[in-house]
Amino acid sequence: MAKYEQLASQIRQQIESGIWRAGEKMPSLRKQAAHSGMSLMTVMHAYQQLESQGWLVAHPRSGYTVAESIRISPQSHNAAVETAEAVDINSFIFDVLQACRKPYMINFAFAYPDPNLYPRHQVNKSLMHAARSIPVSNALDNLPPGNDTLRAMIAQRYAAKGISIAPDEIVITAGALEALNLSLQAVTRPGDWVVVESPTFYGALQSLERLGLKALSVRTDPKTGLDLTSLERAFQSHSVKACWLMTNHQNPLGFTLTEPKKRQLISLLNKYQVALIEDDVYSELYAGNEQPLPAKAFDASGNVMLCSSFSKSLVAGFRIGWVAAGKRATDIQKLQLMSTLTTSVPIQLALVDYLSTRNYEHHLRQLRRTLDKRKKAMCRLLTQMLPPDVEIEPAEGSYFVWLRLPVTSDTMAIYTQALAENITIAPGKMFSPGKQFNHCLRLNTSFELDESHTDAIRRLAEIINQHLEQQ
Amino acid sequence: MAKYEQLASQIRQQIESGIWRAGEKMPSLRKQAAHSGMSLMTVMHAYQQLESQGWLVAHPRSGYTVAESIRISPQSHNAAVETAEAVDINSFIFDVLQACRKPYMINFAFAYPDPNLYPRHQVNKSLMHAARSIPVSNALDNLPPGNDTLRAMIAQRYAAKGISIAPDEIVITAGALEALNLSLQAVTRPGDWVVVESPTFYGALQSLERLGLKALSVRTDPKTGLDLTSLERAFQSHSVKACWLMTNHQNPLGFTLTEPKKRQLISLLNKYQVALIEDDVYSELYAGNEQPLPAKAFDASGNVMLCSSFSKSLVAGFRIGWVAAGKRATDIQKLQLMSTLTTSVPIQLALVDYLSTRNYEHHLRQLRRTLDKRKKAMCRLLTQMLPPDVEIEPAEGSYFVWLRLPVTSDTMAIYTQALAENITIAPGKMFSPGKQFNHCLRLNTSFELDESHTDAIRRLAEIINQHLEQQ
Repeated sequence: MAKYEQLASQIRQQIESGIWRAGEKMPSLRKQAAHSGMSLMTVMHAYQQLESQGWLVAHPRSGYTVAESIRISPQSHNAAVETAEAVDINSFIFDVLQACRKPYMINFAFAYPDPNLYPRHQVNKSLMHAARSIPVSNALDNLPPGNDTLRAMIAQRYAAKGISIAPDEIVITAGALEALNLSLQAVTRPGDWVVVESPTFYGALQSLERLGLKALSVRTDPKTGLDLTSLERAFQSHSVKACWLMTNHQNPLGFTLTEPKKRQLISLLNKYQVALIEDDVYSELYAGNEQPLPAKAFDASGNVMLCSSFSKSLVAGFRIGWVAAGKRATDIQKLQLMSTLTTSVPIQLALVDYLSTRNYEHHLRQLRRTLDKRKKAMCRLLTQMLPPDVEIEPAEGSYFVWLRLPVTSDTMAIYTQALAENITIAPGKMFSPGKQFNHCLRLNTSFELDESHTDAIRRLAEIINQHLEQQ
Repeated sequence: MAKYEQLASQIRQQIESGIWRAGEKMPSLRKQAAHSGMSLMTVMHAYQQLESQGWLVAHPRSGYTVAESIRISPQSHNAAVETAEAVDINSFIFDVLQACRKPYMINFAFAYPDPNLYPRHQVNKSLMHAARSIPVSNALDNLPPGNDTLRAMIAQRYAAKGISIAPDEIVITAGALEALNLSLQAVTRPGDWVVVESPTFYGALQSLERLGLKALSVRTDPKTGLDLTSLERAFQSHSVKACWLMTNHQNPLGFTLTEPKKRQLISLLNKYQVALIEDDVYSELYAGNEQPLPAKAFDASGNVMLCSSFSKSLVAGFRIGWVAAGKRATDIQKLQLMSTLTTSVPIQLALVDYLSTRNYEHHLRQLRRTLDKRKKAMCRLLTQMLPPDVEIEPAEGSYFVWLRLPVTSDTMAIYTQALAENITIAPGKMFSPGKQFNHCLRLNTSFELDESHTDAIRRLAEIINQHLEQQ
């Protein structure tokens, strides 16, 4: 096959998979040549062939568009790449989270593990100890990048896993959310394209919305994760500035990329010069015996900003996270100086005290065991109670289960009805700028299946059954 | 209306807006008299009237509480103008602040008061106490808008000054800087015009830079403050979305607007439909006997976002601030959900403990006295050592002095030379997007004039003298 035919075929695939849609403008010859590494002449031949086959329409002096006649089948939840020019989801997420605050709610929408699983007394003792010994000059000592000892301890924990991260590239932040926000801000300007997973953690969508960024949602497989072919296509078709990805225990699906896939991801990012913001907040909550490495472990370029926190594994209310920011550590310190200035001093010192006097690893082993047990128990209960056409997909690590109802279902209706019975769920709508997961929902499995939680699952199953029958 | 009736009506409004809640203890007669400036007899009459109307309940020998039956609905409450299309100052400020971190520096550039002036032991004890009693379900309890008790206490402190602010409009933030940032974000889009003072607190410039906003710097007078004629002209010539102003103890100049001027400011803002972001972090550090009110006290429209914190008056490293956001309280909660999620829980509880068990007012009185004494001592020393063509302008409240050198001077050169001798100063360049204050500098006067500080002032004076001679 001649080169131009290869390119034409590639573009046809892109149109078929919905990357370029009916009526949309194609990249100029020059741009396409730059992307594909082919000559202008080759690109021109490819476009001419596609025109003669009815895929493209030529417009004098203004390039090519996709023919209006090209309508791709509306299997939109299978689209390789979905675009969203503007993200508008925060108000909805605010409402869902506010609903969770009522004390009598059963919160399957909860994003944190059951707070009873945290080593509360030990952490509080560390805070008391820290409170006794706060140094006088604490305001300046803890300007960005944050407490030196805490940063060294975080680097040491990475080192123990075989990842070399210098304390100098670590910046302490107000939770992982600030780390992720600052990272995204460091590499984008309003209007830029950012790749997220489809479905993705809603925090990514909130951040994109906040910074006026455009979302490119790339297809994932519930088991194997992000589809790298679609990712590369997204890089080819759009000028992508950053990817916001979870490579371990993805929220909401729970997949973990294999090591070869992580390496391949890193080489794709380097090839197309795209920054990676790696959200790794569940990495301590793995299943089995081996903790998966973050993609950053395979990066030598300094192009990965690895974000994490203690909120999912040690204590929720401290709001301490960090980013191992690679070559952007100073940029991120400067951005933090403009946003929150610095992170609470005694809280940083309390974590230093906890990590140096307590056995965090022991706590984590217990936590993982309990979460695994509870997740299995809840999935058993769901399997008993839900009709067989509801797919139950527990995350491999972490503490979520993803329910996939028949595609015509509407989990917003289920959400509203459950809420009326004081049960919260996380409807699929939270996890995408589009509508392709409106038939799905996420549940938190970290709670003990006591009477009230068992009862709530039963009521929820009734609501789902009813909803499916009405269809 | 008799005086006691006026007071009764004011208290009724406070109860209606949720400042005092059902069952809660009211300030004692003596305290209320001190706050309101009315006689004990007047206060007693007011309380008796409220009792007869069913608002308050009298308890023999223990004062008054709000009647349990009172349940309030939760809904209750040079160039005159310089323009800068883009602000680019953060990197420079980052460098200045990083220089301050070295332990051997004498930090006249410091933005906080001498940390030895904070009631460190009391605050730390409160933190220890809070650490002992952190509730289990602390992650959700403290989502935006933050801890309810802390918000009520802040509202009560405003009420004591005669300002009715409902707890519902208060959002707890990661320091005043987050409060200011979220407020600015709530009322602007990238590219909008925002009015700042000339000169202004550099944090305002950093925030504008961060959000891609354009600065309109409006002329100020060192004594009378913001020039309202210029302000109105700015409103007429540009589509201004917001003003970021300090109406009390402005940083760096130290002026406080008079009450009539504050009222006039509010009516201008309402006339032109411009939002006010009021940075009031020095309001506790007033000179003399009377605390000036914020401009918000004179606003009925809900259009003022009053931002403050405990960082300048109680503890620097906690990073707790707030905004009384008026009609934009919900918008700001939603923005916080996207930026830092929430503020550290134990730190909020520690402040609740401190405010309810300690005598904050007593600490503030001492702090004000000490700051005033030290400022005067430092200004005397400066007057002795500096040539007469350097104008020395101490702030009225707070703890800064602004030095105005002959206009041909360049305080960046002085900054660099002082730095080489381990002394930091805040050069005028930090306080403006333009160059009109490059001959000025700001010094922190809160430190004790011990040998090393006296010596540092002498060396600084030598550097300044030398600089002026070379011109």
